[in-house]
Amino acid sequence: MPRPPDFSVEERRGVYRAISERRDVRSQFMPDPIPAPILRRLLQAAHHAPSVGFMQPWDFILIDDLHVRQRVKRLYEQENERAAQHYQGEQAELYRRLKLEGILESPLNIVVTCSRSRGGPHVLGRNTVLDADLFSACLAVQNLWLAARAEGIGVGWVSILDERCLADVLHLPADVYPLAYLCVGYVSEFLTEPELQTRGWRSRLPLEDLLHHNFWGESDNIGALIDQQVK
Amino acid sequence: MPRPPDFSVEERRGVYRAISERRDVRSQFMPDPIPAPILRRLLQAAHHAPSVGFMQPWDFILIDDLHVRQRVKRLYEQENERAAQHYQGEQAELYRRLKLEGILESPLNIVVTCSRSRGGPHVLGRNTVLDADLFSACLAVQNLWLAARAEGIGVGWVSILDERCLADVLHLPADVYPLAYLCVGYVSEFLTEPELQTRGWRSRLPLEDLLHHNFWGESDNIGALIDQQVK
Repeated sequence: MPRPPDFSVEERRGVYRAISERRDVRSQFMPDPIPAPILRRLLQAAHHAPSVGFMQPWDFILIDDLHVRQRVKRLYEQENERAAQHYQGEQAELYRRLKLEGILESPLNIVVTCSRSRGGPHVLGRNTVLDADLFSACLAVQNLWLAARAEGIGVGWVSILDERCLADVLHLPADVYPLAYLCVGYVSEFLTEPELQTRGWRSRLPLEDLLHHNFWGESDNIGALIDQQVK
Repeated sequence: MPRPPDFSVEERRGVYRAISERRDVRSQFMPDPIPAPILRRLLQAAHHAPSVGFMQPWDFILIDDLHVRQRVKRLYEQENERAAQHYQGEQAELYRRLKLEGILESPLNIVVTCSRSRGGPHVLGRNTVLDADLFSACLAVQNLWLAARAEGIGVGWVSILDERCLADVLHLPADVYPLAYLCVGYVSEFLTEPELQTRGWRSRLPLEDLLHHNFWGESDNIGALIDQQVK
C-alpha cells in the first residue's frame, strides 16, 4: 500500500485552490508594489520548475519602468489591431470590447525568457524534441502563476505581441526567446470564472470529452480508471 | 493597501511545498494503482490550466495497457541510444548509468496532447505566436505535476521519444501533437534534490544570475525590487 500523503489536508487544499482559483488577470490590477520578499518567493517558485536535462533555460526580466511598458503597450496595440481583423460582425464587436492586457495598470511586468543555447549543444533529454527548452520555461511560468495566486497576486499573460519586436525592445541576445510577457500585481478581486467564458467567447469543455484509454479515440473501460460516471 | 491574501498560511505553504518538493521521478515508482477519485482530481487540475483564448487544446490519453507501454519503452530505447552517442568518456559513462524513465514501473502513463486546430483558424491571442497552444498544454502538465505531488504521487516526463513514432503508436490524428509523455504513480520516496544534481550532471543556477531589470543584462537597482542581498 502506498504511504499516506505527506501533505496535510489544508496544504493539499491550498494546491487545488491555487489551481482552480487562478485567473488570467487583465482588468483588476491595483497599483500597490509587490513587497520584495514576496516577489523573491514568486521568482524562486518559477526557478524550481522542472526543466529538460536540468537546463533551467529561463531568465526573468523585471520591468517597472513606465517608458519600457509604454513601448510594449504600443507593440500590443499594433498586433491587436491585426488580430481584430480576423473577426467579423458580432464576434468582431465582442473582440474589440475585450480587455486583453494590463501592461500599464499592473505595477510590474515580468518577462520569462528561454535561452535556447544554455547548457551547450547536447542537453540531456533534448535530443529529439528541440522545443523541450521552451516547454520547460512554460512550467516555470505556471509555478509563478500559482504561487502568485496563493499570495493574492494576479498574473496575466499577454500573448498578442510580436516576439521579434519585443526582443528588440528588451535588448535580447539572438538566442534568447521572450516566451511569456506577464503582468503582475495585486488585484481588487479574482473573478470566479474565466472572463472569456463569462463574456460568451468560449466555454470550458467537459473533461470527459478529453479522455482516451490507451489509444486516441478509445474510451472502453475508462470509467474504471476515473470513476463510474464517465461514459 | 492590497487586501490580505485569502489563502491561509497552511494553504499557501502547500503551494510552495508542492513547487519545491516536486521531483521528476524515474526510479521510485510503486505499482499501486491510483484510486479513481484521485486520478480524476489530477486530470481536473490539468484541465484548469490557463490556455490561449481559452482554447483548452489538451487531451489526456491514459495508458495502463502493458503492451502499449512496452512499445513506447522500445521507442525510448532507440532514441536514448541515439542520444547517448553525443557524449564521450566519463560523461558517456555517467549518461548510461542514469535512469531516465519509469514507463513500465509506473502503473499509469498519461500522454498530454495538443490539438493544434482546436477552436478554429483564429484562436484569440494566438495570432502572432502560433505555438501558444503548445505552451498552454505545458501549463496543464505543470498543474497535474503539482497536484500529484500534493497527493504523494510522482510524475516523470519522458522527453526522449520520437514524437512521430509515438503519434503512430497512439493512433493520433495528424493535427494532434504528443506534447508530454508522463509516468505517474505512488513513490517510495521523493528525493530531496533533483537527481541530475545529486549525480553530478548539472547544478541549480543561482537565481541572482537570472534576473534582469527592465532590459536584458541590466541589474541596476534590482536589489530594491527583490531584496537587499542581491548585487
